[in-house]
Amino acid sequence: MGSGKKKQKVSTKPPSGTRDFLPADIGRRSFVIDRVREVYERYGFVPLETPTIENLSTLLGKYGDEGDQLLYRLLHRRDNLSRALELDPVTEADLADQGLRYDLTVPLARVVGNTSYNLPKYFKRYQIQPVWRADRPGRGRFREFYQCDVDITGTTSLVAEAEVCAAVAEVLVTLGFSDFTININHREVLRAMIRAAGIDAALEGSALVAVDKLDKIGEDGVKKELGERGVSVDSATTLLSLVLVASAEGRLVGLADGVELLRTKLDSEGAAALGELQQLGELLRRTPAGAYVRFAPELARGLSYYTGAIFEITVADLQGSLGGGGRYDGLIGMFDAKGKKQVPSVGFSLGLERILVVMEEREMFKAEEIRVGPDVLLCWMGVDLASIVGVAHGLRAQGLRVEVFPEKAKLGKQLGYADSEGVGAPIAAILGEDELKAGEITLKHLKSGEQSRVKITEASAVIERWQAQAQA
Amino acid sequence: MGSGKKKQKVSTKPPSGTRDFLPADIGRRSFVIDRVREVYERYGFVPLETPTIENLSTLLGKYGDEGDQLLYRLLHRRDNLSRALELDPVTEADLADQGLRYDLTVPLARVVGNTSYNLPKYFKRYQIQPVWRADRPGRGRFREFYQCDVDITGTTSLVAEAEVCAAVAEVLVTLGFSDFTININHREVLRAMIRAAGIDAALEGSALVAVDKLDKIGEDGVKKELGERGVSVDSATTLLSLVLVASAEGRLVGLADGVELLRTKLDSEGAAALGELQQLGELLRRTPAGAYVRFAPELARGLSYYTGAIFEITVADLQGSLGGGGRYDGLIGMFDAKGKKQVPSVGFSLGLERILVVMEEREMFKAEEIRVGPDVLLCWMGVDLASIVGVAHGLRAQGLRVEVFPEKAKLGKQLGYADSEGVGAPIAAILGEDELKAGEITLKHLKSGEQSRVKITEASAVIERWQAQAQA
Repeated sequence: MGSGKKKQKVSTKPPSGTRDFLPADIGRRSFVIDRVREVYERYGFVPLETPTIENLSTLLGKYGDEGDQLLYRLLHRRDNLSRALELDPVTEADLADQGLRYDLTVPLARVVGNTSYNLPKYFKRYQIQPVWRADRPGRGRFREFYQCDVDITGTTSLVAEAEVCAAVAEVLVTLGFSDFTININHREVLRAMIRAAGIDAALEGSALVAVDKLDKIGEDGVKKELGERGVSVDSATTLLSLVLVASAEGRLVGLADGVELLRTKLDSEGAAALGELQQLGELLRRTPAGAYVRFAPELARGLSYYTGAIFEITVADLQGSLGGGGRYDGLIGMFDAKGKKQVPSVGFSLGLERILVVMEEREMFKAEEIRVGPDVLLCWMGVDLASIVGVAHGLRAQGLRVEVFPEKAKLGKQLGYADSEGVGAPIAAILGEDELKAGEITLKHLKSGEQSRVKITEASAVIERWQAQAQA
Repeated sequence: MGSGKKKQKVSTKPPSGTRDFLPADIGRRSFVIDRVREVYERYGFVPLETPTIENLSTLLGKYGDEGDQLLYRLLHRRDNLSRALELDPVTEADLADQGLRYDLTVPLARVVGNTSYNLPKYFKRYQIQPVWRADRPGRGRFREFYQCDVDITGTTSLVAEAEVCAAVAEVLVTLGFSDFTININHREVLRAMIRAAGIDAALEGSALVAVDKLDKIGEDGVKKELGERGVSVDSATTLLSLVLVASAEGRLVGLADGVELLRTKLDSEGAAALGELQQLGELLRRTPAGAYVRFAPELARGLSYYTGAIFEITVADLQGSLGGGGRYDGLIGMFDAKGKKQVPSVGFSLGLERILVVMEEREMFKAEEIRVGPDVLLCWMGVDLASIVGVAHGLRAQGLRVEVFPEKAKLGKQLGYADSEGVGAPIAAILGEDELKAGEITLKHLKSGEQSRVKITEASAVIERWQAQAQA
């Protein structure tokens, strides 16, 4: 009992890579999240949320080595910790068996793998939650950040690919984006290009990492990196020509000569995958995604669980992506003890922070759409606290959002407070002795200076009129 | 590249004390959270969110020893971990300097202590976020759970106490609760009772823990526990009589003879604190909290940062509380390096999970209020995928929430799927060759069997009519 006696110097900043969201930040974040949710629900997705904490056995081995290293692990406690610390030597694996959610796809796979939940055969779920990665912070890149995911599990139908692409495209269009690109590729097209270039299967992953950097380091950069990774000059040249023949054109459908040319160079598996992408392109032409799709044969995507089509959304003014996704037909099966249950699935993830950073820099938010804070600041003088509290209740019962000035102060000071950053009440409701006796209140529109003394019970009608005028 | 090849046995359950929230769960949780937010905003609170991860220097030493032990700590990574493991011996403190948020009050204190944020002098914030405690799980008690907090910082005015109590009371009334109790006490009343009973100040904390159990273990139980904790029989009897004289009555205002009797037994500090509670009682009579307030002189509250009034909400059918709070005038000052800035504050926290468990057991949710899932399942036969995707887009453009059956199947199977748990589309939209040619669709209300073939562009009008009929 009794705190505040010992003083120590404690930082008031949030940890590196994390942020505090003040009211105005929340206003913008909620605006975006509400629209994402509305569109996702219109596309028939239903909500799911999973715990922040997952067992490491769930998380490890799904994201590739780099992902595993970026996991936050929770230190054992009490007896478990004591036992671990008695070991010699002590290793990381002895100290933790739980960690923080790294993405929303692996938790979904765990949930779908849990047959006791009786989920529908085609589970179309959306999930909007934070994830954690112990990565180096940067612009639009944080250690704690929100993903907005849609996934469809249980089907190989291309309708699933089309639905997730259309849903994220409609989100972006709804938010006011008109210049994004949905880059589309297919893991089997990539692998067939590697084979067609005569590159050893053992170098496949390594070669894809190099090709994936085409838009960052250019043709010569990719060739150089392929060489460093052990790919011969001939193979590197062939691989790059395969990529470029279709990449420059970017079309999946219509006058897609490059795609046709690429197809002739691939083996039957690669050609089939390319045909699948073309069919997907045809489907997407019927959706809001159609105008934004680009065939991107250089696109590889880092996560190791993708098996089919892969997606990535880019805008010109942001390095990195606004979101990405793809088909993962093997992941959910990893949660089946008998190893028999395959649940083919496809998903798309939008990064909330990336969207926000672009929208803020482009000034895409309209002030009137994201106002937070009360409608009214109740100011008072010469009346008792119980009356103030009672009048506040009377105003709130009319649906008004009411802040009460809590302390005795001159009216000017109280009115000035309405303008404080983070309060922002556009209207003052002034309660004096006279008003109280008459059951009235003086309303003052702080910007226009308009003032009106009205029955307390009629305050909301006047305020709604003022609000409507301000918007008109 | 290429996953799903290695199979391992991985549990599909979430970690102990955490949960997956399936769509129906999210429906109920969102229903409650939306109402909490609406009421909190009506009371003039503005939203804040803080990171999941906090520095341990922020968290430690605020909650008491038990709280510190329940903190989740994040294991150091890479070089930091290697360096720690080279120490001999390695201790818990060497292995982590960050942890998970334990409540929403200490992060608020850190934020308010950060002067660069330019927060208003009286910061009325609400915060609805999860917190983590490595506690033993139980009914309505989880390791990851949501708190819904309101706090007012920067004032000693009793209006602040009244506002937070009124806000949480209105939340509960709005949700349909009519039988809860807001137990109110004051840390200084407790301390004055301890002094009046002649108990040594060193035993204060220990004695309060015993008194706090009055409703669980009864008078004899408390006396016994006081004895075990080193309080003399005489002092224990006196303390208990002081508690009981006002507790039995429970009133703060009106015919509060017990409170008056208690006041005569306390020293001037205790009497002043009691007077403050009575004044608070007068304020609360003017708010939705008035009908639910009880003076609870046995109430102590565990957290060590409280300094003034303390609150706890109980209902008969739940052990533990729906929420609690109090005044903490010293906490924020702990984040001021110079130790000079005192920011008197008061807050109230509702436990989302506790509210949900009671509402579910009492069947307080109405199915029509929390429906999740699509309006329509689009079923099809004899048409191509692009047309299906196009029609789905046409229906969605009318604002309908549309799920698409993704695979080729007999119509009966597709219609049956609309009834699947977690899908629950009440209406099927059937697209065949005939309909497609005519730009029409057959709508079928699955419960009533009513069926209607309409222009695709008019589908939403028909469906809205059916929905209105179902609600009437």
